[in-house]
Amino acid sequence: MDIAVLGTGMVGQALAGGLTRLGHSVTVGTRDPGATLARTEPDGMGNPPFAAWHAEHADVALATYADAAAGAELVVLAGNGSAALDMLTAAGAEALDGVVLLDISNPLDFSAGFPPSLFVKDTDSLGERIQASFPGLRVVKSLNTLTAPLMVDPSLLGEPSTVFVSGDDPAAKALVTEILTGFGHTDVIDLGGIETARGTEMLLPLWLRTMGALGTGMFNFRVVR
Amino acid sequence: MDIAVLGTGMVGQALAGGLTRLGHSVTVGTRDPGATLARTEPDGMGNPPFAAWHAEHADVALATYADAAAGAELVVLAGNGSAALDMLTAAGAEALDGVVLLDISNPLDFSAGFPPSLFVKDTDSLGERIQASFPGLRVVKSLNTLTAPLMVDPSLLGEPSTVFVSGDDPAAKALVTEILTGFGHTDVIDLGGIETARGTEMLLPLWLRTMGALGTGMFNFRVVR
Repeated sequence: MDIAVLGTGMVGQALAGGLTRLGHSVTVGTRDPGATLARTEPDGMGNPPFAAWHAEHADVALATYADAAAGAELVVLAGNGSAALDMLTAAGAEALDGVVLLDISNPLDFSAGFPPSLFVKDTDSLGERIQASFPGLRVVKSLNTLTAPLMVDPSLLGEPSTVFVSGDDPAAKALVTEILTGFGHTDVIDLGGIETARGTEMLLPLWLRTMGALGTGMFNFRVVR
Repeated sequence: MDIAVLGTGMVGQALAGGLTRLGHSVTVGTRDPGATLARTEPDGMGNPPFAAWHAEHADVALATYADAAAGAELVVLAGNGSAALDMLTAAGAEALDGVVLLDISNPLDFSAGFPPSLFVKDTDSLGERIQASFPGLRVVKSLNTLTAPLMVDPSLLGEPSTVFVSGDDPAAKALVTEILTGFGHTDVIDLGGIETARGTEMLLPLWLRTMGALGTGMFNFRVVR
């Protein structure tokens, strides 16, 4: 499948690599490919620049948001929540019409430092805002509840854990669930419509504090029942 | 230990029963004991009235909030979040001075129907409001992330799961953790100060939607790491 991954950070790299390993043809989208490749500094979290990752993943193309999205059957939103709507606008509403969007973004607001708060929550969600802004997109919120390496390889944990899908389009959720299964996720809970993204986005405050308590982000929640 | 459980609903009944089984001396606190025992109708969730439960738990005393709290070493807040501050005010700030409070309440707002939203979140929490309103209380937020029967008997699930504690007083958290261990909880994560209650209280929107997807509240989150 032709897949566009919007975002060049940890989540974008993990998804692009994971989807390539599953045999998909992946183009990473960014605002300015030249600028992205020219950056030689680690990002704010100390991760290596995209160019270093890309040098080891030559099978992944790099293009503008619009060029990456053009013709993609699936678009993965792997950028910061604060940039989500701008990234999709740059990709182009027409190109996104009818396309499935795997939305991994979280509405994190770092303006008051760490831990971040959420700039939308409780009676609305970023997933819903994206769906409302791009009615032609088939938005599926998923994978926003665990750290990037575990998104594409949950077997890094010794025990099975849970991921969630939220969205209004059953066929879009089925496509995303197939990809999740390909990554090794054995427990995918369909929470319902895109409104249920409120639940997984509001898990972030607990995720962040659990990371603080454990001293690592290498954990995931499992729904034991 | 002399323990007061404030609240006569499902959570209050579960905690009073569970703490009695651990050998503690439990008094359930309510606004008006006579009125509580006179109610013969099920509650809004279809649960039997308190009197029916009390008839089978004669070793649990029933008293006013103030009489229950007087002399208690541990107070359990097992009422609705919207009533939490009023219940503690009725118990009396003097009686609560230096006492450990196990705060199970959640800031659920049902004014717009189901699922409820949260009347405090993200940059504040009900746990913090309680601690700020009653500085002499040693507040520990815990057990607000799972259904009442599992709070006191997590072995009802076939696999171990996780509970959290948040609070500013290490000795108070140690006391609560000892009780959690007594109930059978094998994985208790200390998230840090009472500020971290924001995390567990904001899990409720996901808890509610997971309950909707599974069709049961008999589940709990496990932190797999």
